Amino acid sequence: MIGVFDSGLGGLTVLKALLQQMPHERFVYLGDTARLPYGTKSPQTIRHYTEQNLKFLKNQNVKALVIACNSASAHWQDPDFENLPVFTVIEPTSAVAARKTQNKKIGLLATRATVLSGAFDRHLRALDPEIKLYSQAAPLLVPFAEEGLREDPLTNLIVYRYVQPLLTEGIDTLILGCTHYPILKENIQRATGLDIKLIDSGPAVAEKLKLHFKNESPSTGQVKIFTTDALGHFKKWATEILNPFEAHAWELTDLSTQRF
Amino acid sequence: MIGVFDSGLGGLTVLKALLQQMPHERFVYLGDTARLPYGTKSPQTIRHYTEQNLKFLKNQNVKALVIACNSASAHWQDPDFENLPVFTVIEPTSAVAARKTQNKKIGLLATRATVLSGAFDRHLRALDPEIKLYSQAAPLLVPFAEEGLREDPLTNLIVYRYVQPLLTEGIDTLILGCTHYPILKENIQRATGLDIKLIDSGPAVAEKLKLHFKNESPSTGQVKIFTTDALGHFKKWATEILNPFEAHAWELTDLSTQRF
Repeated sequence: MIGVFDSGLGGLTVLKALLQQMPHERFVYLGDTARLPYGTKSPQTIRHYTEQNLKFLKNQNVKALVIACNSASAHWQDPDFENLPVFTVIEPTSAVAARKTQNKKIGLLATRATVLSGAFDRHLRALDPEIKLYSQAAPLLVPFAEEGLREDPLTNLIVYRYVQPLLTEGIDTLILGCTHYPILKENIQRATGLDIKLIDSGPAVAEKLKLHFKNESPSTGQVKIFTTDALGHFKKWATEILNPFEAHAWELTDLSTQRF
Repeated sequence: MIGVFDSGLGGLTVLKALLQQMPHERFVYLGDTARLPYGTKSPQTIRHYTEQNLKFLKNQNVKALVIACNSASAHWQDPDFENLPVFTVIEPTSAVAARKTQNKKIGLLATRATVLSGAFDRHLRALDPEIKLYSQAAPLLVPFAEEGLREDPLTNLIVYRYVQPLLTEGIDTLILGCTHYPILKENIQRATGLDIKLIDSGPAVAEKLKLHFKNESPSTGQVKIFTTDALGHFKKWATEILNPFEAHAWELTDLSTQRF
């Protein structure tokens, strides 16, 4: 079983990519919906929540941990957590972007926390010192994605505003540096035009995990989803994002009363 | 000393109104910035956070508690918490709106949590059964206010979209049912036109507290501010909102590690 967490819904786009690559694997997902969003909070608070979430997933007896949230990934440096391997979205997403760019000018749309962390800059520079990264914090995209306003002209306006400065830098590749952004992928592609390649964290991290676990015998294929706030709205959206996959169990958990 | 809490910055508009009415009183303010926003979360989670916050303030030795957050107020029914009086923003704001309306058609802009709670409907109906309340959840106003986008045409567009359905109902009074909205008051007044009266929670609750404590001898006048996430951005904004008043002490606190 593999544990995956995100601040909320967005990480389900990563879980879906994992299910596509590893349909026989068992997954447990934690959406920390009682404390979202992470991307507007401080590095200390993000790290504190990340540790609690990893601990919770470890207690579910997983063999590996995936930090699906870019803001949490950007503030996590260790390859392990209490002897379990930790996979963040930063490293594999950077690797795919570095492979795809031809002019070595990459754009990044992300939360303020992720941009300020400099995590993508560090990884891309390590892969190829000639790559230039142009970063744009896009704090309003998460609320628009959470409202599901994909068909709304206001969404196109706000997306265009964030993307435009990156286009003028001449990027040929754009990292969607927040798990919520794939929900607005069509709006973003419309703003960039079709010549610019959009890089999504989900397939990047899923490919990496598939390689890591390639020799293991398949298990039954099962998904359990925990959230820290009530399920109502979340369940409907989650079902839509995961489709055609589905969760086999849903449960509410309260991290604040757990004794670790 | 009086304790005031909000999910974040917005409640400082209430604290400022309290300082204007009671400049010699001492206040302790808690902004639960590590877990904001509240308005998108479930009733259970909002109540759980409210109890933790009230307990924290009680431990600061206050004589009264003010829930400045509308979403938290909307889910709190008791007049007391552990023998301390609790003042919410719902009741005094409803009373002012009921006094000001002439055609008995009142509009409400609020978070989804506040609208769904029906708290303003209940209070207004109790004051005058002839009053009709028209409610509009405005989930994107908090992120726009937090970004400080007061001069932005997109803010005007989104405000107009939320206000327009209330205008077609013929309201003459509009409750700003979230402490963040006074930050966008000019944008909202522009969308409503000058004939519609905007009702702000801050002055309403401050008037009520002033009456309640009118016979007490004045103390020294002092403001201490706690937050649950790092102060950086918050301190700058808080100073601007409170001006010309100022905080005498700032402190970071971690509610999750406190033993109550």
